[in-house]
Formats: sequence, C-alpha cells, structure tokens
Amino acid sequence: MGDEEVKLLGVWASPFSKRAEIALKIKGISYEHIDEDLSKKSSELLRYNPIHKKLPVLLHNGKPICESLVILEYIDETWESGPSILPKDPFSRAMARFWAKFIDDKCIAAMWSIRKRSEGQEKAIEELTEHLKTLENELKGKKFFGGDEIGLVDITANVIALWLGVLLELLGIELLTKEKFPRLCEWVDDYLDNSVIKETLPARKKIKEYLSNVLRT
Amino acid sequence: MGDEEVKLLGVWASPFSKRAEIALKIKGISYEHIDEDLSKKSSELLRYNPIHKKLPVLLHNGKPICESLVILEYIDETWESGPSILPKDPFSRAMARFWAKFIDDKCIAAMWSIRKRSEGQEKAIEELTEHLKTLENELKGKKFFGGDEIGLVDITANVIALWLGVLLELLGIELLTKEKFPRLCEWVDDYLDNSVIKETLPARKKIKEYLSNVLRT
Repeated sequence: MGDEEVKLLGVWASPFSKRAEIALKIKGISYEHIDEDLSKKSSELLRYNPIHKKLPVLLHNGKPICESLVILEYIDETWESGPSILPKDPFSRAMARFWAKFIDDKCIAAMWSIRKRSEGQEKAIEELTEHLKTLENELKGKKFFGGDEIGLVDITANVIALWLGVLLELLGIELLTKEKFPRLCEWVDDYLDNSVIKETLPARKKIKEYLSNVLRT
Repeated sequence: MGDEEVKLLGVWASPFSKRAEIALKIKGISYEHIDEDLSKKSSELLRYNPIHKKLPVLLHNGKPICESLVILEYIDETWESGPSILPKDPFSRAMARFWAKFIDDKCIAAMWSIRKRSEGQEKAIEELTEHLKTLENELKGKKFFGGDEIGLVDITANVIALWLGVLLELLGIELLTKEKFPRLCEWVDDYLDNSVIKETLPARKKIKEYLSNVLRT
C-alpha cells in the first residue's frame, strides 16, 4: 500500500472533519490534510462534493468519499488490517450504526438548538438532557461506547466530548456535570486522555474562541 | 439456520417498513410480519424501540434492530449467502451508503414539504426537482442504482418509485414525467416490474387512499 495517496479535505474546527482524522490515525494511515477555508468553498471541495459541498471529503487515490459516517465505514473496510472501528459481529455493528445515527440525528440537532436564546431554548435543553440520559445509560458497564477501545460511536461522539462542553460553558448552562451524568463525564475524561484523540482534537481554548465568534453572529 | 426466528414489526403503508421486507425477500429469509396499528403504538414497539418508538423493528432471535438503513445492512451482513444488497468493494459500498443517505436526508424531507400548500411549497418543489435531477444523473448508463440488480439505493428509493408518484398526482403537480426525467421514469417502470418489489409494495390504489387521508389531516 506504499503507493497510496490519501488526502483529507477538512477544517480544524469541525467535529465531522475530526472524525475522519481520528479514524485514519487509529488505523495508522498516513494522509495529507488540506485545511479548507470555511468562509470560501474551494474548487476542490465543489468538484469532489458537488451534492452537499460539505466537509470532510476523503480522497483515496483520487476517488472522493463524502459524509463523515460513510467515510468512517470506508476507512474501516479499506484498511482491514488495523484496529477495528466497527465491531465484527452483525448485531454489534448494527448497534454501533444505530448510536452513531442517534448522535447525528438527535444530539447534534438539539445541541444547535440550545445556542439560540429564544423561546425554543428551554425545550431544546430538555431534549438534549433526554438524549444525554440515553447516552449515559448506554455507557453503563463500559469504558467507551465501543467497549474497551474507541470505536465508531466514540469517534462520532467527539462533538459531545469537546464541543458540547465548550458550548454549555459559553452559554452559562450547567448540564454536562458529574452530578447529573457521572458515566458520561468519566467517558469524556477517558476519551480526551486517549493519545490519538489528544493529538487530533483542537485545544479547548481554540474551540472556545471559535464558538464564541459563531455565537456572536 | 432452520431454528431462526425472524419477525418484523412494520406497517403496510410505510416505505421504511417495506425496505426491510424487500431486503428479507431478496435474501430469501422467511419471516413473520407483525402489522402494527399506526394510531396506537404497541407495547412490543415501545419495548423494542424505546428511543425512537418508530417502525420498522427487525427481531432476530429476540434481538431488536431499529432504523431501516441499519436493518438493511444487518440483513446483508447476517445472511451473507443470498444475493448482495450492498456491493462488495469498499468504494462502491461507500457510494451506495452516500446515495441511501441522500434519499433519506434530502429527497424525503423535500417530499414532505411539498404537501403543504403554503408559501414554502414552491421552494420545496424546486428543491425536490434538483434532487430528482441528481438521481436522474446518477442512473445514467445503469438499469438500477445498484447496476443490473436491485441494491441498497434502489431499496431505499422505494418511496420515489411509488409514494412520490401518488403524492404528486394527489397534489396535481406534474413533476416526475418522462419528458423531465426519462431515466428515472424508466427506473420506476423496471423497479415496479421486479417480482420481489411487485409482491412487497402495496397496491397504488391503497397508497392513494391512504395518502389522500393523510393530506386531509
């Protein structure tokens, strides 16, 4: 596989881009990271993801793969030799896909809704609380969602480990606390302490600056 | 595999339930279909899909699998011997997952929006038109989205082959026509003519009655 070309069009502040990076690093794949400018879509992005025009895009020997969860499965199936991102048996794989989709469809939607100080904010906080309770329950008896090692759901949940905490701090909302979510908070600690995660996710301070600007606009 | 128990909690009018049925039939798996009452969620549904409380739910030897796309992948991975629902090579698998997600996230959302005769209807029709153009383009040179045989994307697109046509007719919108979408219309014909699809999807007349009631409420 020495002649392979692996490139990732991504952006440092995006949890979706970071998912792809985490998966490539877990697999030990060398790749070139092309940091896109969020304020101006590059011609590469428009060429390789004409449907959604969104990051990340994985380019493997010139072939583009889009949508972060699709990319994670592609990485797992292409470089089979490395550590697994999805479990092996079909039922556990289905559960991993179910939870990854739950984070994308439910948790992230609720996260975006709490940022607006409107009438809907309270309802969004309630919804997010329910979703976090669901995740808290799913973590019982496990170190990571994937078991002893980080897997598909943990990679997908990077947004909860880093971005959510910063967002709640900026909004002055006390939610993801050790009293309310002891298991989830332990998971956050273990997750951010993992060597691959540590070297891949941006510094909390940078995310705080970034999200603070987003909230102002 | 003679001792297996395969049950599907579904509802006849739902394209999502029908996806799971099509996949089971393509694989030649015997299953018991438990038709749920849409007006009242059963205790089985609440027990087996407590997070979303939605159909379909596949029960395989008592284990529940939820979310129609997750179910399709589960069926393909569990009964490997039958015809494949997803292609074999990782890039083609990624493409199939990309298009299935496109149908779920984009096409179905736009379909639901055109039903309301509000200000937003025109915009929704424009959006849906764009999405159908994208699918028309994807079908070029192929009989089915999956190639010569029906695959993941075709199964996911059952909603376009049947429900969309009926909805457009009821709303008096001329959109999915041979002039505008020659390839997609050919696909609809080939698809509805397939023996598994024919025996699985409800009669057009029944869907028309059903959707006509939905539009009235």
